[in-house]
Amino acid sequence: MSAPASPVKPLPLLVTMGDAAGIGPETIVQAFRAGALAEAVVVGDRDVLRRAGAPMTAVVDAPADLAAVPPGCLPVLVPPGLPDGLAALPLGAVDARNGAAAARCIEHAVRCVQAGEAAAIVTAPIHKEALAAAGVPFPGHTELLQALAAQAAPGGVAPPVRMMLANDELRVVLVTIHQSLRSAIDAVTFDAVLDTIRIAHAGIGLQRPRIAVAGLNPHAGEGGLFGREEIEIIGPAVQAAQAAGIDASGPYAPDTVFMRARRGAFDVVVAMTHDHGLIPVKYLGVEQGVNVTLGLPFVRTSPDHGTAFDIAGRGLADPSSLVAAVRAARRILGSR
Amino acid sequence: MSAPASPVKPLPLLVTMGDAAGIGPETIVQAFRAGALAEAVVVGDRDVLRRAGAPMTAVVDAPADLAAVPPGCLPVLVPPGLPDGLAALPLGAVDARNGAAAARCIEHAVRCVQAGEAAAIVTAPIHKEALAAAGVPFPGHTELLQALAAQAAPGGVAPPVRMMLANDELRVVLVTIHQSLRSAIDAVTFDAVLDTIRIAHAGIGLQRPRIAVAGLNPHAGEGGLFGREEIEIIGPAVQAAQAAGIDASGPYAPDTVFMRARRGAFDVVVAMTHDHGLIPVKYLGVEQGVNVTLGLPFVRTSPDHGTAFDIAGRGLADPSSLVAAVRAARRILGSR
Repeated sequence: MSAPASPVKPLPLLVTMGDAAGIGPETIVQAFRAGALAEAVVVGDRDVLRRAGAPMTAVVDAPADLAAVPPGCLPVLVPPGLPDGLAALPLGAVDARNGAAAARCIEHAVRCVQAGEAAAIVTAPIHKEALAAAGVPFPGHTELLQALAAQAAPGGVAPPVRMMLANDELRVVLVTIHQSLRSAIDAVTFDAVLDTIRIAHAGIGLQRPRIAVAGLNPHAGEGGLFGREEIEIIGPAVQAAQAAGIDASGPYAPDTVFMRARRGAFDVVVAMTHDHGLIPVKYLGVEQGVNVTLGLPFVRTSPDHGTAFDIAGRGLADPSSLVAAVRAARRILGSR
Repeated sequence: MSAPASPVKPLPLLVTMGDAAGIGPETIVQAFRAGALAEAVVVGDRDVLRRAGAPMTAVVDAPADLAAVPPGCLPVLVPPGLPDGLAALPLGAVDARNGAAAARCIEHAVRCVQAGEAAAIVTAPIHKEALAAAGVPFPGHTELLQALAAQAAPGGVAPPVRMMLANDELRVVLVTIHQSLRSAIDAVTFDAVLDTIRIAHAGIGLQRPRIAVAGLNPHAGEGGLFGREEIEIIGPAVQAAQAAGIDASGPYAPDTVFMRARRGAFDVVVAMTHDHGLIPVKYLGVEQGVNVTLGLPFVRTSPDHGTAFDIAGRGLADPSSLVAAVRAARRILGSR
């Protein structure tokens, strides 16, 4: 007779400190003080976190050591190879050492998650120019995470990923992001739309999400009068998703589908362009917004603001979005 | 010695009944019962308004006769040449007679305003197909009003007009509207943007409105990386407007400019595309939305919903948007 299963302690979350010259470290310390980082380990530099106001810190060798950290101590996992003297660098300025450190923290966090030592990664903001100055060949988190996931994937192929932005009222997954509107229209292909629907279906942390697919054109093309992408591309992709058992519908008129989702008609909206999706997510204020990378083999969320160099270290940063990112990661994990 | 000027009674507003088979008449009657149509005369068919629940009606020969209408009576101005028997036609169905009647009401209202007998026109919704069935060669209000304005203009040239959508939180004026997104990008020209800024400046009913001009591309082009329209077209149009003494600024990133306007940073946002502008206006619900045609030589507002044939006559229509349209017309008039 086997003993009853003892309740398994959930794996900790990892929070990467981001660019040390930005508001990442101070928002992490604020979130910790507010009790929002229970069961989380910060991946970063101890002195940087102290400068950001950390009360007591406890360096851990691995995420599992969190269990031994006394209450009130901020658990810090220091990646091997972190540059020295980061806390002596000025706040609010681009520095290659901060860029290198930010990348090291992310790499180490991914390795811990891939080794089964942690459950998910919440990333504080990094700075594109600092990353470039450090010779890191990726413009941002998404590309770096995609490359790290590819290293561990069969054949080394990067998985298709999509950006989800979410707040308490709305979830949006984007087919296209950082390109001109004209080129985004060309990038709205059958495969891109269907991939996005599939990734949203699998990744947002709901059993069988009701996915609304927005059109590209005014009135979703008004039967072809205002554009044919809905008829030729988006509609067929929605049908293919339905045939695969996904609860997708549309294409809907872009100007009302977000309002309908906010009122509860859908769990998530797939938007064709960056601004169709981000205008409604940001309309009520960005404090509670969360960025989730879908399609990776692990859960990754982040606040939807940047490093805010202009206010770093001045006590003005708002930890709400980071706290929401931690909460979102837990919610997605809880549903798995 | 001249007598002191006696307070001049403001000219009445005219409210056109719209398509008699839709929710226009019942929303008018509800607004009247709620006390929201003081100083307004309905241009329409008496029996249609009775069917829609009008308490008592008083037919007037001209807007000025409003003064003689007893309290509690809905003043109705019946245009010459209105088809007979409209109230016997079924609700919720396209009928050429309703299309012809709707157009007659609008024409008569414009004539009254042009003759200085009324101050502004608030239009209840019409039905595109009913209009077409009646042989009216215009797809909607805007084009019909533009043509009527052109008839009275020097040379018969139609003035450039723009659609503004507004609610209690946000005003948006659109550079492009009912066309494919791809063709809308081509229609974002220097002249189109500058005309829109000028029309917004002159028409929204504020002394010197703070006009934010949204970009077309993500992050307003990110310095040319995500599209060059901001650098080559929109930015120069903003500068030309500034040179003309207009308080315009931008181009701003589309995903945050509406949020900033909602918080009070700007009085109005000029948006390049239908959905960039309408997504935020509609996000919080359409009940309070108002459509204003800017650029006409008179004030014209309307609710931002359609005829809603599916619920016409069933007591489900919400008069809020019509009431808001009346209020908006009064506000714009009051500022002149």
